[in-house]
Amino acid sequence: MQKSGNKRSSKAGLPPGSLVHIGRVYREHIHVSVFNYNEEVYKERIAHTPEECVSFRQPHTVTWINVDGINDVKFLGELGDRFDLHPLVLEDIVNTNQRPKVEDYGDYLYVVLRMLYYAKDEKDTLVSEQVGLIVGKDYVLSIQEGDEKRADVFESIRERIRSSVGKIRRLGPDFLMYSLIDAIVDNYFVVLERLDDKIEEAEDILASGAKEGTLNLIQDLKREALFLHKAIWPLREVASVLQREEGAHILPATRIFLRDVYDHIVQLMDTTETIRDILSGMLDIYLSTMSNRLNEVMKVLTIISTVFIPLTFIAGVYGMNFKFMPELEQPWAYPAVWIVMLVVAFTMLRYFKKKKWL
Amino acid sequence: MQKSGNKRSSKAGLPPGSLVHIGRVYREHIHVSVFNYNEEVYKERIAHTPEECVSFRQPHTVTWINVDGINDVKFLGELGDRFDLHPLVLEDIVNTNQRPKVEDYGDYLYVVLRMLYYAKDEKDTLVSEQVGLIVGKDYVLSIQEGDEKRADVFESIRERIRSSVGKIRRLGPDFLMYSLIDAIVDNYFVVLERLDDKIEEAEDILASGAKEGTLNLIQDLKREALFLHKAIWPLREVASVLQREEGAHILPATRIFLRDVYDHIVQLMDTTETIRDILSGMLDIYLSTMSNRLNEVMKVLTIISTVFIPLTFIAGVYGMNFKFMPELEQPWAYPAVWIVMLVVAFTMLRYFKKKKWL
Amino acid sequence: MQKSGNKRSSKAGLPPGSLVHIGRVYREHIHVSVFNYNEEVYKERIAHTPEECVSFRQPHTVTWINVDGINDVKFLGELGDRFDLHPLVLEDIVNTNQRPKVEDYGDYLYVVLRMLYYAKDEKDTLVSEQVGLIVGKDYVLSIQEGDEKRADVFESIRERIRSSVGKIRRLGPDFLMYSLIDAIVDNYFVVLERLDDKIEEAEDILASGAKEGTLNLIQDLKREALFLHKAIWPLREVASVLQREEGAHILPATRIFLRDVYDHIVQLMDTTETIRDILSGMLDIYLSTMSNRLNEVMKVLTIISTVFIPLTFIAGVYGMNFKFMPELEQPWAYPAVWIVMLVVAFTMLRYFKKKKWL
Amino acid sequence: MQKSGNKRSSKAGLPPGSLVHIGRVYREHIHVSVFNYNEEVYKERIAHTPEECVSFRQPHTVTWINVDGINDVKFLGELGDRFDLHPLVLEDIVNTNQRPKVEDYGDYLYVVLRMLYYAKDEKDTLVSEQVGLIVGKDYVLSIQEGDEKRADVFESIRERIRSSVGKIRRLGPDFLMYSLIDAIVDNYFVVLERLDDKIEEAEDILASGAKEGTLNLIQDLKREALFLHKAIWPLREVASVLQREEGAHILPATRIFLRDVYDHIVQLMDTTETIRDILSGMLDIYLSTMSNRLNEVMKVLTIISTVFIPLTFIAGVYGMNFKFMPELEQPWAYPAVWIVMLVVAFTMLRYFKKKKWL
Amino acid sequence: MQKSGNKRSSKAGLPPGSLVHIGRVYREHIHVSVFNYNEEVYKERIAHTPEECVSFRQPHTVTWINVDGINDVKFLGELGDRFDLHPLVLEDIVNTNQRPKVEDYGDYLYVVLRMLYYAKDEKDTLVSEQVGLIVGKDYVLSIQEGDEKRADVFESIRERIRSSVGKIRRLGPDFLMYSLIDAIVDNYFVVLERLDDKIEEAEDILASGAKEGTLNLIQDLKREALFLHKAIWPLREVASVLQREEGAHILPATRIFLRDVYDHIVQLMDTTETIRDILSGMLDIYLSTMSNRLNEVMKVLTIISTVFIPLTFIAGVYGMNFKFMPELEQPWAYPAVWIVMLVVAFTMLRYFKKKKWL
Repeated sequence: MQKSGNKRSSKAGLPPGSLVHIGRVYREHIHVSVFNYNEEVYKERIAHTPEECVSFRQPHTVTWINVDGINDVKFLGELGDRFDLHPLVLEDIVNTNQRPKVEDYGDYLYVVLRMLYYAKDEKDTLVSEQVGLIVGKDYVLSIQEGDEKRADVFESIRERIRSSVGKIRRLGPDFLMYSLIDAIVDNYFVVLERLDDKIEEAEDILASGAKEGTLNLIQDLKREALFLHKAIWPLREVASVLQREEGAHILPATRIFLRDVYDHIVQLMDTTETIRDILSGMLDIYLSTMSNRLNEVMKVLTIISTVFIPLTFIAGVYGMNFKFMPELEQPWAYPAVWIVMLVVAFTMLRYFKKKKWL
Repeated sequence: MQKSGNKRSSKAGLPPGSLVHIGRVYREHIHVSVFNYNEEVYKERIAHTPEECVSFRQPHTVTWINVDGINDVKFLGELGDRFDLHPLVLEDIVNTNQRPKVEDYGDYLYVVLRMLYYAKDEKDTLVSEQVGLIVGKDYVLSIQEGDEKRADVFESIRERIRSSVGKIRRLGPDFLMYSLIDAIVDNYFVVLERLDDKIEEAEDILASGAKEGTLNLIQDLKREALFLHKAIWPLREVASVLQREEGAHILPATRIFLRDVYDHIVQLMDTTETIRDILSGMLDIYLSTMSNRLNEVMKVLTIISTVFIPLTFIAGVYGMNFKFMPELEQPWAYPAVWIVMLVVAFTMLRYFKKKKWL
Repeated sequence: MQKSGNKRSSKAGLPPGSLVHIGRVYREHIHVSVFNYNEEVYKERIAHTPEECVSFRQPHTVTWINVDGINDVKFLGELGDRFDLHPLVLEDIVNTNQRPKVEDYGDYLYVVLRMLYYAKDEKDTLVSEQVGLIVGKDYVLSIQEGDEKRADVFESIRERIRSSVGKIRRLGPDFLMYSLIDAIVDNYFVVLERLDDKIEEAEDILASGAKEGTLNLIQDLKREALFLHKAIWPLREVASVLQREEGAHILPATRIFLRDVYDHIVQLMDTTETIRDILSGMLDIYLSTMSNRLNEVMKVLTIISTVFIPLTFIAGVYGMNFKFMPELEQPWAYPAVWIVMLVVAFTMLRYFKKKKWL
Repeated sequence: MQKSGNKRSSKAGLPPGSLVHIGRVYREHIHVSVFNYNEEVYKERIAHTPEECVSFRQPHTVTWINVDGINDVKFLGELGDRFDLHPLVLEDIVNTNQRPKVEDYGDYLYVVLRMLYYAKDEKDTLVSEQVGLIVGKDYVLSIQEGDEKRADVFESIRERIRSSVGKIRRLGPDFLMYSLIDAIVDNYFVVLERLDDKIEEAEDILASGAKEGTLNLIQDLKREALFLHKAIWPLREVASVLQREEGAHILPATRIFLRDVYDHIVQLMDTTETIRDILSGMLDIYLSTMSNRLNEVMKVLTIISTVFIPLTFIAGVYGMNFKFMPELEQPWAYPAVWIVMLVVAFTMLRYFKKKKWL
Repeated sequence: MQKSGNKRSSKAGLPPGSLVHIGRVYREHIHVSVFNYNEEVYKERIAHTPEECVSFRQPHTVTWINVDGINDVKFLGELGDRFDLHPLVLEDIVNTNQRPKVEDYGDYLYVVLRMLYYAKDEKDTLVSEQVGLIVGKDYVLSIQEGDEKRADVFESIRERIRSSVGKIRRLGPDFLMYSLIDAIVDNYFVVLERLDDKIEEAEDILASGAKEGTLNLIQDLKREALFLHKAIWPLREVASVLQREEGAHILPATRIFLRDVYDHIVQLMDTTETIRDILSGMLDIYLSTMSNRLNEVMKVLTIISTVFIPLTFIAGVYGMNFKFMPELEQPWAYPAVWIVMLVVAFTMLRYFKKKKWL
């Protein structure tokens, strides 16, 4: 769907753990916001260097560092060093072709997700952005590509932290991770409903008569549905793994909420399945409409031809210039020919009526 | 199939456990009936407030609270608080896009099912209503959307409690839960038979010659079959989980009945599979009928054209105005031309007969 | 395939364990035969009441009670009570839509199978009859719908008991159960070979040129193959469960024979798979034959039209009545026109020859 | 593919273990060769009676008895008795519809395989012969249908025993079994390469233009590929079971060779999968070629018709016999009409050129 | 895709472990490079005989022997003897039809992989070369077919060893194995992106109007995608086995890198799946374009024919030579006929406009 800047192949031959940004560049400058909170206090700051990120951490609080923009690999490399991240984790974060997955690195949990939205500027195409979450004992690192043109889906969570709505301030980094994942998954419903609307429009177009462009429209929708399907499918495994996580990263209280996320994902999968079935039904209708139309065209041709060809033959016969054609001399012959012609035409039409072509 | 009032996306950004009613509004006012029964006694009342629901509970009896209507989220929220329900359970109940599932919350078991029926007022469309069951130690909460226009499938169970038919009064809330699930599953057979009848009608229409509307009819039936299939599929897992439930919610005596429900669901799945195969066979027949018809149209055109076009040519030749055309002067020429024409026509027709086009 | 008397939906709302006969009525009167045998003795009687069935039981012998006909639910209800059968077992036996399955009720094993045969009276349709087997410590109850028009597949087993052929008299009720299942499964081969013959006939029809009825024939065969497939599929699970049965119902000596039955069922499944592939290949050939025919029709039309239409135009030109048409006055003009026409016609035909349309 | 003499249904009703030869008769007379060998000695004889087979056995040697021909059920019955074979094993051996499988009977291992080859006499059809192997402590019985017309795939193993090539003389009956299975599986590659050649021929035919017979050719190849696929599929399970065999029949040294056979079978499966994909691609090309051809035919018809029909109309107009047609009197009229006609014709042709139909 | 020199069937009948080179010959002469390295030292030499390979081994270093070319079976046989390789391993290495797999032989691990690249000389076909890796305690043997025309994918690893970049010099043979596998898998991304480019070209061709060659193009791409899919599929199992390897061959530090390789392979599989879906969508568009074109051709024919055939008939009528045709005498008749003709033509065209054929 979206064109990459660097391609994956530009990494072939490099040693593992090399930081090369692969994918489209969504924003020029990196933007890092840092939250510290616990049940009593809450602080919100902007960090400009990796050192600041670390120095903003405070004991007995949860630190949430949200990084927008991943093409500054040097910044990310230093940040990773300070948080003792495995080189492969950093490599994954800057390579934006990751499949959603969860990996337990002992000290922290690493989750990759994809955020979906319809791009506003370029023909309404479906865009998929990568979000990496690193969940440690008392911190969460969320690193997103951070397209500046789309709405920030984490804003509602920031609001909740600021105004201490819900359980978020009372619980640890695992609940923050859940909240971030939930925000991303909730956003999928918005995308699905948008696709649903598009399908309804396409159905109206199809019902009003298939045009040549309809097929491309259906194929585009199919491709979007497939894209969604592929994006959601691995999510299920992620949610399922998180739910059953046996390490110390996720507390039982959060686990029940992750089960809820899992249910939402299964619901999303069901919906995409239904959408794909509807689209394949539309394709059938389109193809059949085209073939019906051919049938109709052929019927019109056949009716006109079979009615007039015999008549033209008759006219041709009496247009011959033989000297001895007794009929030509009779005064009743001309009207008689007309009568014959009308009888032939009516017989033909009656035949077509019987065949239900008319 | 059915249009929603609130859409799922209207919940994006809210903290988990927020009560927002999502889905169509089936009824304006909530209606709550409360049953208390054990082997000896039985009492039936209507509750108007959440407090009443709780105050109607009595020791040593099973309390069945049936709630019709879910758009009064405040009522449900209070009811949930009094029964110590987890916020996510309540959130699920008012969000009518749930997939059938079972969840064990320790103190109670939470089951979501979907009830299917053909709407009476709007073109016979298939409607799916959500039913939530909460099964505690001595109570069952059944919360349905409660469309007022359809028949109440739980009425037969109420009758059985009132007249103490079968084992229902002798056994606990788990058997009541089984009875409710069984009533819902039994109702699926009614829907399937209705669909079966529709398919038979469609087959008759198809046999009497495919019209243009036939394809849409088959596609509609396919969509209904798919809808049914998707509704029944997750049910199997629910029944299978309930059957193997290891908690204390379900007694062994009830388990054997749940195995029976499981068998019914497998039977339903078999039937929907068969229906889908039949429908896809009908589609094949439809398409082939259309293409046969084209063949037939083309044959008529070809026969008429190939018989008359050469004749018209012959007539055209003797309609030419050349001065020196010796044939034109002969008295036998005109009948001779007729004979030639007849020979040509008969040869053509014999050829088509041989080709079996006639 | 077969129309039911009572439909499944007529049971909706009844308490579990209600005995309602669902399905076609195959015979008016119930017929019960009772066998007692061990290695030394053997006795064969007809029972008219449930009491007789029980009184015919003898210590140290295997009792085989075969019931033909299931619409006398009262008789079956009493029989069930005397053998302490669970109400759900009896409910299953009279509801003839059961899927093949095995259930262990502790004191006895309950097996449901389906017997397939081609009905003799009604257009050779495939009929599926339900057979229930209850295998206790020293008895076997076999309850079939017992269509009087078909051959009795258990007769060969009766013969073997009477004449003590094979191991049957030496072994217990588990071996009798195996023998009954084996007889039913063996019968499937007969049905499959019949279907195979039908397919060969259809292939001959197809090879001799597709007619309009061919498609329906293929679709009917496909439906039969599907019906068979669906009947055999769950059988495999039954055989597999019996083979691995861990209770005391089946002795190791019998288990090896059940493995043999399992192999037969897998073989049946292979064959139905092959049949379905052949039929889908036939459908492809049919459709392609139809489209070939259209191609051929169009070619004939095109050849005739493209040869004669230019000629007719030439004739038309010299049929014009302009005063000043110098060609018309020349004596060589008429033969020259003929030569031109022949050249045009031959050029056209050569072109078609080159295109391999002729 | 191959017609049977006795059909499977002829066994319905017989007690288990009855010996009835089912399948085609490949050879009239049974032929039994017996090998005795160990690292030092080796003896090769022909046996004529079951007694001889047994008497040829010698202590401290491996005895390999190879039986060609299975329709002499009496001989096989006696042989089975002398080797204490279970009746079901013998029944399987003479019933030639077995699916490949392994069964452990404690004293011996029973393996059924199918040998594939192209019959030389009857239109190159693919034939599948059954081979049964019984592997005891110090003997191997290999029983094949033994078509006299095909090459003997076991000859290379006999050679290896005679000249003591490789490990065969040093190892036990399990290695001999492996060698026999390996010989059979190796032979599958020959068959696959033959099929591959046929597919290449068919591709050449298809590339040079689809004829009517092409479809049947592709369908035949598809059927052969399916036949192969079905033959190879269960083999994998056999090899997998042998590889993991826990009894004492197979020594660890042989197990590593069986893993190699397993790999070969997976390779065979991969190849058949690829072949099936290629064939289904060929079908698509065939169908599309046919429809392209229809397109081309229609274009020719359309071009000729649309060019000449208007011209013929113009000629027809001036062929009318109205008294007052001023054009007819003008000397410039005839050439003018010709010019008009040429303009019309060229306009039409330019239009078709623009549409890229020419 | 690629033609073999020896075919697999040439091995039928040979004892297991026979060394016969099967497959295409990529290079004439074998080329062997030997690396010795540990954290401090590093040596790089060329070996000409198997003895040299062994004599180059040094204590406390990792020895990497890379063999290019496998058709010199004698050389490989001797090399295998000196490294105590099992005969089946050597047999596998020279038989180039292996499926990717891992086998643990106790003393060493044997891994087979396939390297994919687009051949430069022969029409850009996809070529698959076999690479065998043998990983012992202190050595790695990599044996490839070594096509001289393609780039050497292991060169980057040699560079890393020479300049001691990354962890490679610090870790053991298991990390070297990982690096080799990673280099091969990275190369798949290059191939996939090349295929992606080809698909985009094909989409452009398709968008600009389907020509006859387009179908073959799509089919070729489909075949390549299938080829890739089949090459990548078994790789996943290899990576999964290596990741979970329980022997002593792979150290935990390397295992985490192998998990990364596994992720890359899953990503590759996702991409090939997407590619296959896109190609099948293109096929649908192609077929529908062809049928649209037929529709258009037929419409043009029908419009021209139905407009002019009635007109030609009218002209034919007044071309008849009857003596008594009163119309012919009237001066207004000729213009009147023209008016009638124009009315007929316009009516027809209006009808087609209404039908949206124009």
